[in-house]
Amino acid sequence: MTHPLRSSSDSLSPVFHSTTPLALDCGAELPHFHIAYQTWGQLNKHRSNAILVCHALTGDQFATGKHPLSQKDGWWHHVVGPDKPIDTNKYFVICSNVLGGCMGTTGPQAPRHDKKDTRPWGSDFPVLTIRDMVRAQKRLIDHLTIDQLFCVIGGSMGGMQVLQWATTYPEHVFAAVAIATSTRHTTQNISFHEIGRQAIMADANWHNGHYYDQSRKPDRGLAVARMVAHITYLSEQALHQKFGRNLQNRHNLSYGFDADFQVESYLRYQGAQFVDRFDANTYLYITRAMDYFDLAGEHGGTLAKAFQKTRTRFYVVSFSSDWLFPTSESRLIVKALNAAAVPVSFTEVTSDKGHDAFLLNEPRFHELLHGFLEGAAHHHPSP
Amino acid sequence: MTHPLRSSSDSLSPVFHSTTPLALDCGAELPHFHIAYQTWGQLNKHRSNAILVCHALTGDQFATGKHPLSQKDGWWHHVVGPDKPIDTNKYFVICSNVLGGCMGTTGPQAPRHDKKDTRPWGSDFPVLTIRDMVRAQKRLIDHLTIDQLFCVIGGSMGGMQVLQWATTYPEHVFAAVAIATSTRHTTQNISFHEIGRQAIMADANWHNGHYYDQSRKPDRGLAVARMVAHITYLSEQALHQKFGRNLQNRHNLSYGFDADFQVESYLRYQGAQFVDRFDANTYLYITRAMDYFDLAGEHGGTLAKAFQKTRTRFYVVSFSSDWLFPTSESRLIVKALNAAAVPVSFTEVTSDKGHDAFLLNEPRFHELLHGFLEGAAHHHPSP
Repeated sequence: MTHPLRSSSDSLSPVFHSTTPLALDCGAELPHFHIAYQTWGQLNKHRSNAILVCHALTGDQFATGKHPLSQKDGWWHHVVGPDKPIDTNKYFVICSNVLGGCMGTTGPQAPRHDKKDTRPWGSDFPVLTIRDMVRAQKRLIDHLTIDQLFCVIGGSMGGMQVLQWATTYPEHVFAAVAIATSTRHTTQNISFHEIGRQAIMADANWHNGHYYDQSRKPDRGLAVARMVAHITYLSEQALHQKFGRNLQNRHNLSYGFDADFQVESYLRYQGAQFVDRFDANTYLYITRAMDYFDLAGEHGGTLAKAFQKTRTRFYVVSFSSDWLFPTSESRLIVKALNAAAVPVSFTEVTSDKGHDAFLLNEPRFHELLHGFLEGAAHHHPSP
Repeated sequence: MTHPLRSSSDSLSPVFHSTTPLALDCGAELPHFHIAYQTWGQLNKHRSNAILVCHALTGDQFATGKHPLSQKDGWWHHVVGPDKPIDTNKYFVICSNVLGGCMGTTGPQAPRHDKKDTRPWGSDFPVLTIRDMVRAQKRLIDHLTIDQLFCVIGGSMGGMQVLQWATTYPEHVFAAVAIATSTRHTTQNISFHEIGRQAIMADANWHNGHYYDQSRKPDRGLAVARMVAHITYLSEQALHQKFGRNLQNRHNLSYGFDADFQVESYLRYQGAQFVDRFDANTYLYITRAMDYFDLAGEHGGTLAKAFQKTRTRFYVVSFSSDWLFPTSESRLIVKALNAAAVPVSFTEVTSDKGHDAFLLNEPRFHELLHGFLEGAAHHHPSP
């Protein structure tokens, strides 16, 4: 079994070390932090062709290429690469593991004070917000001496980061693509996240978040959290078409509690795979950040105010069968952008794949994304 | 903390003892079993006014009146009682705890062989089907010397029992009301149940199902199972209207993992309440029975064949915002009944309350249910 990366010392990615303290929304301050990131393509001489790709809850910086732990293709290999919709022949693409993550960026498994106190933070790590994650990313972009990103792109929690970038650093984002996302987590989505957290915290191996020196991790709780989340990523139709009521390696019911149905076996596999690459505390922290996300709340309750200073060109995309971040959520973003006179295009892509569609081979979505980037490049002042 | 009933000896309900062995679908045989039940109203001299009410997954025989453990109103107090839609001035109403239950009917917490071997079955209890539950209920109805039930009524898993009654014992059911139900559990519903089971079995206190002699029960796993199920009982709209993103007893986010949002607090409360009245193994067994339910599968894959011998008058009801047992599932029942020339009425009740609507104060539904029973009584040959 492989374990998630514990610190920058065993990182498989380039790591940016920020030694300037980072003030967090919770009031605490991180004295220093690491950001693990990957890049593809070449930054042009005007430093004007950078695209920041933001990952979702269980994603990481390995958007494309082979993942160093799983040896599988990166989570957006359909989208990022030479001649792909986000063309690395043309753009300099950056993807960083979010603050709180478990793939080399500072999070709950990182040591508190590097050399003085090497105990991992565990649940003493400060609770983060999407804005905190974006503030940390901004440090990385500054470090790379990029003044304005050509585009910030992401789906789901990645889309929340996109919205945060365009409202917190509007002058530093030329274009933005917010996919299958929302300006605030819905009640139902908070509920599903709370189930996942409760499953982790109910695991006897969680030890109130201080399990890093224990032989056993809260894997069973984390697996249950993954399983429940996984159902919400798929449409009922996709689940039905893929599995129906088909039995797993048998012709008759077992009359027991093993995985009789293929869908049970599939979910158990998803859970088991996940615990090999993900940290339970990171799951707690990142779901919390998503639940806390409320762009209108940051601007006195009026969403349009969030975009008042934004002149970023927007593309908003939803998928028709996504019930986790349904089209109605995307329409609220579009409405607020319209109210703030921000240029925006919007597409609801017809798909039966549910929320997961943004990660899958969806040619129509990929054509549209490519087209938007071409159009934005055409309007970009820099050659 | 109150505990679920352990055996018939401390039962709060009348108990029917069946000493004739019951052959189960799994191939095993229960040498004897108990059925705990409640009745309301009077059986008429023709014994023709009996209504069997079938309970759902977490229900029990206390459909109306004060529940002896929780001291709350029974789960269908809006529907069953004098001058209520199921009028106990007119009908003799029976409700029994299902086989595998934990309210006095034989289930995993029952002793294996009463006096000889008093160890509880635990996870050695045979896996049950909805048909097994109905077979056991039929014994109770025979014991009460009722040849034909005037009506069998139930929602959700109760509706599955209704469908099973009308296909297994068609000549013994004059009318049937199947509410918010399905002829087979969908892939998504199997998935949600599997999450609940995994949460229970992941609890270190589950002890492979043999926890009855332990000081601690798998309460945390059972609570998580309840929480995830509870989300599926409500519509997104109902959750949003009830809780939105309102904070619980505070004005600001806590930046911690306590219940910040009201919906988190609500779900935790639902979980905590549930473990006081329910048994974790029963949860495993009953969800399994629902997952296994497949009426077409029992009849060579053709649903209409299931109803071929049925002349029962049917009423099928769905609720517009129910995403667990959506209207499309009810339409499949209606289609099969039509194909088998079985008389059927169907209503989709407009409601924003989700699957839970069948348990709540829904006047339109109650009027329709009352009307159907009046009409059926009018056509009943017996006075």
